[in-house]
Amino acid sequence: MADVQKLVVVGVGLLGGSIAKAALARGVAAEVVGVGRNREKLAQAQRNGVVTSATTDMSAACCGADLIVVCTPVDTIAAHVRDAAAACNRPTLITDAGSTKADIVGELPAELPGRCRFVGSHPLAGSEKTGAENAAADLFVGRTVVVTPTDTSRGEDVEWLRAFWTALGASVRLMPPDEHDRALAATSHAPHLIAVALALATATEDLPLTASGWLDTTRIAAADAQLWRPIFAANRANVLKALDEFGKTLASLRHALESESAGDLTNLLAEARRVRKAAEEIRNGNALGS
Amino acid sequence: MADVQKLVVVGVGLLGGSIAKAALARGVAAEVVGVGRNREKLAQAQRNGVVTSATTDMSAACCGADLIVVCTPVDTIAAHVRDAAAACNRPTLITDAGSTKADIVGELPAELPGRCRFVGSHPLAGSEKTGAENAAADLFVGRTVVVTPTDTSRGEDVEWLRAFWTALGASVRLMPPDEHDRALAATSHAPHLIAVALALATATEDLPLTASGWLDTTRIAAADAQLWRPIFAANRANVLKALDEFGKTLASLRHALESESAGDLTNLLAEARRVRKAAEEIRNGNALGS
Repeated sequence: MADVQKLVVVGVGLLGGSIAKAALARGVAAEVVGVGRNREKLAQAQRNGVVTSATTDMSAACCGADLIVVCTPVDTIAAHVRDAAAACNRPTLITDAGSTKADIVGELPAELPGRCRFVGSHPLAGSEKTGAENAAADLFVGRTVVVTPTDTSRGEDVEWLRAFWTALGASVRLMPPDEHDRALAATSHAPHLIAVALALATATEDLPLTASGWLDTTRIAAADAQLWRPIFAANRANVLKALDEFGKTLASLRHALESESAGDLTNLLAEARRVRKAAEEIRNGNALGS
Repeated sequence: MADVQKLVVVGVGLLGGSIAKAALARGVAAEVVGVGRNREKLAQAQRNGVVTSATTDMSAACCGADLIVVCTPVDTIAAHVRDAAAACNRPTLITDAGSTKADIVGELPAELPGRCRFVGSHPLAGSEKTGAENAAADLFVGRTVVVTPTDTSRGEDVEWLRAFWTALGASVRLMPPDEHDRALAATSHAPHLIAVALALATATEDLPLTASGWLDTTRIAAADAQLWRPIFAANRANVLKALDEFGKTLASLRHALESESAGDLTNLLAEARRVRKAAEEIRNGNALGS
């Protein structure tokens, strides 16, 4: 890939901090400028070597940037992309790390200020932890990053983003924004609400009787509500459909249990085991290939 | 606790093997006899030092036993307890490691052969892995074991079991069998079916887009169907009730999402986070206290 002399990360939290650390650790960028609102947190990220410099001033940060990655909550990404484009002194590629894509693409004008271009990214990596203090340079190793070009995206921008994420250790998949949002509703957003529902359905007095099964199943329910609420809002229709699909499957399991159909229940349990193992093999394959 | 010269473990799988290994490693038992059906697996467990001896002959194993722990699938436990009692040459305490309790207690006669006594146990520890080859001497460290005495249980047997599990590193909670089954339906059995439903609801073509959230939430769906089907059957009514409770919570989340009530959704997400963190603190507290 072309050298990134200056990488700008807008929003230096867990994801933005990890992109910054990975880019520096792997020599993908010579300089990483962190942009944020909280001066104290930015100063701390700089002291900890997460970024090489930090500022609250988007204009100062974006001047001379080779790539800008917006890593803020999904309901603020489009506005930050517009601000960043307006702050650039030359046509610059801008991407993001948001968990939804169609809303962001839909909110952005066909032409950004200063002939900047936006192509969306979604790294399928994260943690229930938050903040730059939990950022990790290896967060993307063996993980998938979905890049979501549209009809107007330039092929060279897409290939450049592929090279960028690959250089951070990830495998890149290209998908249209709509298709990304449908799939992620099923694999991430609805599962998150299911974990939340399970945590909420468990009576406080029963919590001492939870074990690793419950703790694993509810792990993502510990994530930051402020980050997730906008994701659900942005992908509402797809999430509702995915929840309906889950509801049907749960109803068929419930029916097998209620009707004492041991054969049906055994088959469903065996099939779920097969699906779970297939997903694990895909992940292990990605990790080996990286 | 009184010395266990001879501990008998019926069913040398992950749980039985871990009890055997823990008892030997911690000097809780001088001798552990494994009882099973598969001669090859028994011989392997003996070679690997999981048990000190192994046999397919219940009578030979139980003669002179100080404690017998039945670690077979829940639908076979009561029969094995009766067989073990009939094989004892003196009144012996028998327990188990099954995930349901009321059905087992209900199936056993008030008086076992040879004046043996049964008091149920359920170690809240396990793994999606199976088999003695995955047994671990530290499986019970910092974990809870529920011991389920009934009106006819002798206090000294209950205290003796408490001492036994405590010596393996666990914290013991006493609960009546019915109450155990109601609580475990909510904290383990229904969550298992929810994880299974999520795995089944995910389309094969979307599996490459799963990440750690989905993988955590579905982890228990990889467990052995042959072990779990009898658990669901034995605790059917409680599991159906727990699924209904979960269904209500999921419906209220769905409603908050559908009605675009951002405040409601944020509150529900924040409350789920609180519940999840409370469960984690209880577990960490147990681990520290052990």
